[in-house]
Amino acid sequence: MGVKDIKKARNAVEFNRESLESVLKRRFFFAPAFELYGGVSGLYDYGPPGCAFQANVVDLWRKHFILEEDMLEVDCSMLTPYEVLKTSGHVDKFSDWMCQDPKSGEIFRADHLIEEVLEARLKGDKEARGIAVNSSVKDDADKKRKKKVKEIQAVKLDDKVIKEYEEVLAKIDGYSGPQLGELIKKYHIGNPVTGELLDQPKPFNLMFETAIGPSGQLKGYLRPETAQGQFLNFNKLLEFNNGKTPFASASIGKSFRNEISPRAGLLRVREFLMAEIEHFVDPENKSHQRFNEVKNIKLSFLPKQVQESGFTETVESTIEDAVASKMIDNQTLGYFIGRIYQFLIKIGVDSDKLRFRQHMSNEMAHYAADCWDAELKTSYGWIECVGCADRSAYDLNVHARKTKTALVVRQKLDKPREVTKWEIELNKKLFGPKFRKNAPKVESYLLHLSQEELATKSEQLTSNGKVVFNLEGIDEDIELSHEFIKIEEKTTVEHIREYIPNVIEPSFGIGRIIYAVLEHCFWSRPQDTARAVLSFPPLVAPTKVLLVPLSSNDELAPIVTEVSKILRKQQIPFKVDDSGVSIGKRYARNDELGTPFGITIDFESVKDGSVTLRERDSTKQVRGSIADVIKAVYDITYNDITWDKGTAHLAPFVSQSE
Amino acid sequence: MGVKDIKKARNAVEFNRESLESVLKRRFFFAPAFELYGGVSGLYDYGPPGCAFQANVVDLWRKHFILEEDMLEVDCSMLTPYEVLKTSGHVDKFSDWMCQDPKSGEIFRADHLIEEVLEARLKGDKEARGIAVNSSVKDDADKKRKKKVKEIQAVKLDDKVIKEYEEVLAKIDGYSGPQLGELIKKYHIGNPVTGELLDQPKPFNLMFETAIGPSGQLKGYLRPETAQGQFLNFNKLLEFNNGKTPFASASIGKSFRNEISPRAGLLRVREFLMAEIEHFVDPENKSHQRFNEVKNIKLSFLPKQVQESGFTETVESTIEDAVASKMIDNQTLGYFIGRIYQFLIKIGVDSDKLRFRQHMSNEMAHYAADCWDAELKTSYGWIECVGCADRSAYDLNVHARKTKTALVVRQKLDKPREVTKWEIELNKKLFGPKFRKNAPKVESYLLHLSQEELATKSEQLTSNGKVVFNLEGIDEDIELSHEFIKIEEKTTVEHIREYIPNVIEPSFGIGRIIYAVLEHCFWSRPQDTARAVLSFPPLVAPTKVLLVPLSSNDELAPIVTEVSKILRKQQIPFKVDDSGVSIGKRYARNDELGTPFGITIDFESVKDGSVTLRERDSTKQVRGSIADVIKAVYDITYNDITWDKGTAHLAPFVSQSE
Repeated sequence: MGVKDIKKARNAVEFNRESLESVLKRRFFFAPAFELYGGVSGLYDYGPPGCAFQANVVDLWRKHFILEEDMLEVDCSMLTPYEVLKTSGHVDKFSDWMCQDPKSGEIFRADHLIEEVLEARLKGDKEARGIAVNSSVKDDADKKRKKKVKEIQAVKLDDKVIKEYEEVLAKIDGYSGPQLGELIKKYHIGNPVTGELLDQPKPFNLMFETAIGPSGQLKGYLRPETAQGQFLNFNKLLEFNNGKTPFASASIGKSFRNEISPRAGLLRVREFLMAEIEHFVDPENKSHQRFNEVKNIKLSFLPKQVQESGFTETVESTIEDAVASKMIDNQTLGYFIGRIYQFLIKIGVDSDKLRFRQHMSNEMAHYAADCWDAELKTSYGWIECVGCADRSAYDLNVHARKTKTALVVRQKLDKPREVTKWEIELNKKLFGPKFRKNAPKVESYLLHLSQEELATKSEQLTSNGKVVFNLEGIDEDIELSHEFIKIEEKTTVEHIREYIPNVIEPSFGIGRIIYAVLEHCFWSRPQDTARAVLSFPPLVAPTKVLLVPLSSNDELAPIVTEVSKILRKQQIPFKVDDSGVSIGKRYARNDELGTPFGITIDFESVKDGSVTLRERDSTKQVRGSIADVIKAVYDITYNDITWDKGTAHLAPFVSQSE
Repeated sequence: MGVKDIKKARNAVEFNRESLESVLKRRFFFAPAFELYGGVSGLYDYGPPGCAFQANVVDLWRKHFILEEDMLEVDCSMLTPYEVLKTSGHVDKFSDWMCQDPKSGEIFRADHLIEEVLEARLKGDKEARGIAVNSSVKDDADKKRKKKVKEIQAVKLDDKVIKEYEEVLAKIDGYSGPQLGELIKKYHIGNPVTGELLDQPKPFNLMFETAIGPSGQLKGYLRPETAQGQFLNFNKLLEFNNGKTPFASASIGKSFRNEISPRAGLLRVREFLMAEIEHFVDPENKSHQRFNEVKNIKLSFLPKQVQESGFTETVESTIEDAVASKMIDNQTLGYFIGRIYQFLIKIGVDSDKLRFRQHMSNEMAHYAADCWDAELKTSYGWIECVGCADRSAYDLNVHARKTKTALVVRQKLDKPREVTKWEIELNKKLFGPKFRKNAPKVESYLLHLSQEELATKSEQLTSNGKVVFNLEGIDEDIELSHEFIKIEEKTTVEHIREYIPNVIEPSFGIGRIIYAVLEHCFWSRPQDTARAVLSFPPLVAPTKVLLVPLSSNDELAPIVTEVSKILRKQQIPFKVDDSGVSIGKRYARNDELGTPFGITIDFESVKDGSVTLRERDSTKQVRGSIADVIKAVYDITYNDITWDKGTAHLAPFVSQSE
């Protein structure tokens, strides 16, 4: 049974999130953390199959990205001092907007609240118009949430209002705090349960704060991303790479966000596994050597212009065309979009439920120059699972300036070149008498001005005969005339070109990806809807083989031991199920765990050493010697060989049991 | 060159920690985190080789323990609510003792301070007596630290005093806070730099605190160990294991301890990778099915009696004898000690620098019934790297009681058995009128009394005609007579035996182990002490192969590409070094990175397709076809085949370059 057949089979029975959740809970893929203590929202524990699946996804990620492209993996501290995140902009800008109900004290995330209420009103309108509210995946998903909204009432809306609501919803990720406040006011949005009016939105910083050391004086945060650790090690990494660019660093580890009101299971959590790549590239040359390998991949794109006009239709295009038309800014960004696609398909994402959405201009993170999200369609809607941002030189720039350390690439030029640059000269012996103890501060400020700032200052100096400015910590205005400083454009010959590289950052939320794959791989057999299947690709399946002795008869035990020994030696993860229940029940349990292969040992095995191999999705069975069957399992799982080819040397087998 | 020869070669040049540190820094194995910002003590980042080494050690751990024994791996939340750690005892007891200098505000960890000062005095005594202070590894290590101690003076001490100091040092891990305070007073220990007297020791809780959620009302901590997450999931894990015991869960992840004054590099850090196993076992049967596989291993043990008498001589014994003599409490503890040993040797620990030290009675963690540490000898002394504790039923017990949830194994008995138990009956209709709103509290208290408590209460009831007790939150004494309660021993027939399992916990500090392995694998070539080597076992080496084209001639490039392609396909991690420097320099760089194999491509390769394979430790070289050479690399690295056997099919090769 190929991928297409599974899709067909899956569509035969409608997706039902409750069945999936029931399987995930029953088989302990994951569960709310601290459930014994009532749980803490936004925190989850992975049980054995979830944990093994996660480990396999991470292992594949490491091979697909790090090993394949010689990336430099680092493992950096999660505890991060205040100064670092102040410089990166997270202390000031890494916030969501929250509204408090002044009566109950309840806190809502502003954008989610608007979304919830407007969607409920649109639904109410449909009911009023007598339009069958189709119980699509999305609606189904909203059931629980919508129950809370008091005002779901069959109220007909003006056509104009409907259009307005739809446009707001399409742009919901792009509003600022004050804009959200205006929407709340304009549309009379209150506490969805009581209707109570809410306070104006306030920013809430999403970082967890703590104190480092026994004196409690060093304020710190849990990192909100792994990226900063990579940037701070830039010079060491560049040196490790013998000074050559482009190169990429990568990191896999937990990050933390103190979400205002986590919901939607694994999709919005407070502690999550990330895998991030920081690809450092010459800002003047963002081509990619291996672009050819991905350029013909055809993908669904949702560019910003479409969204900004209030629409959600995707554009189909090859990566090559998308880059040529400048929809995607550059080859390197395009290359990584292609590699992200390949990775997601390998681990079981349904390509029909994958699109790349560009961030709108007002939605972009504070550091990004361009950004595309790989979004996966789930019963919760389209979910951002991988971000692919061009962070430009933002981070290296701010850290370099703050720490007064050069974070640059030095490129030896084949031909020396003439460069014209603004330069400032200080007449230092005048600074001491004039500024006294503040002199070093003023000097340092002047010596660290950017080219643009120097140009402006030079203009002022020329037209006013002086420059005037303020510095934090110095009360009076600082005035400097020609006597003190000279600002001039100078042309020099450079043998070395120095530049701060730009950063292309593919950033993976592993938990979200895992949840989406769980939905995409889940289906029920049409002939028996109670029997659910998780069709993980063998390479990432938590366990590869279920070993099933047909009965608990002692005769079979030595063969179980023999097969176990070989599987263990070949490092093929397997489980033995020697429980007394029927073989059908054991296969059903196995299918729910997503184990792709079953090896059954029966009394024939004792006689001739043959065993049966069963495939999870098709329930096909074949028979052969232990060695041949394990070879088939190994080849299909690890050598990317199809079932038909991998089992060509085995005999078909008709089972009585399924 | 075998392991023994390397040892011999290594001993030829004295170990020097500064050379090791210089290599680790230059090759970016790890570095202080946030160095650009001045660093934060106790936080480190792993660079590419350190990170790859760590990933390989973790991968091997997973195979050696989890896959080999079908353990149930879980991945649990690091953020942990207050209630959980209050119950586990960490809020009250997970502290170190700190002394503050009232003048400077400086804070010292009390036990470390005493150790430092007494060791300095002993050294001063030796100098005064004219005994050559041998610059052993240990002393060398202390150099930096000791510099700080003002009072290193050649002062002769009484023989009696020396003996006292030595005894205190042997027992230093076992003192309580007040005892440390007494020692500080008794020996006049002050601020080691100024001599200033210090405040009495106060407990400092080592957990990082934070607030969860936007209201800031849910107090939480970063977990200090991964164990609690495993305990809280006990019921789900037991069900996943079909109700059978013994079974083990396992977890690999970061934990956090807010150390008072971190020092000694990777050995005492505030954020660290742990790998922990919780093996759940019947308290009445701690035998282990696979004990036979490890029983003959001979190890160095340092039992508690020896230490409590102030000595540090180890006892050599097989695990079998150690269990038989009750030095090790039970087979399961013995089994894991053996498995820990095997793991450590596999990843490169020197067996001569490994001992198992038993915790002294007053040193044991608050939850432990018995505990053995695998200690590794480094230039910092003997370092605890793996703990192997019998936590008894402590954790499951306290969580069960606090959450009123049964955390038990239900074992179907082959033969029903008679059991006599204390039972309490409440005359509930009297409770309401007497206690009003407090009635449920009093009832719940009585219904959750342990067997021992019931026995005591029954005795009181019999002798005094009433029981009297207090409950938190109820002001007046609670008095209950026979009218209210009946406590009786009853005998029933049980078909199911219920028990709370005991927990054997092997707990690995991966960072400490990694540092110890770095020391154990580090040596310099006698003929050229500037050339350092890190002799990692190939299986855990960060990179397996260095690919070296002899010159940058274009003719060699296609062969580099060809070899690269095969290595990548076989997932053998490799690096290409096509820098222009001499081949000798490239090998030297390679040896410092601990890469076990070099494949050299020269002009002969162009003619006949042969390449040279070089072994790092012996610098032996052999020659053969690309396929044969890569097969040798694969077999030696992954199939545990020796160099001699793995290269038997290759021709010896004499190099001119080294």
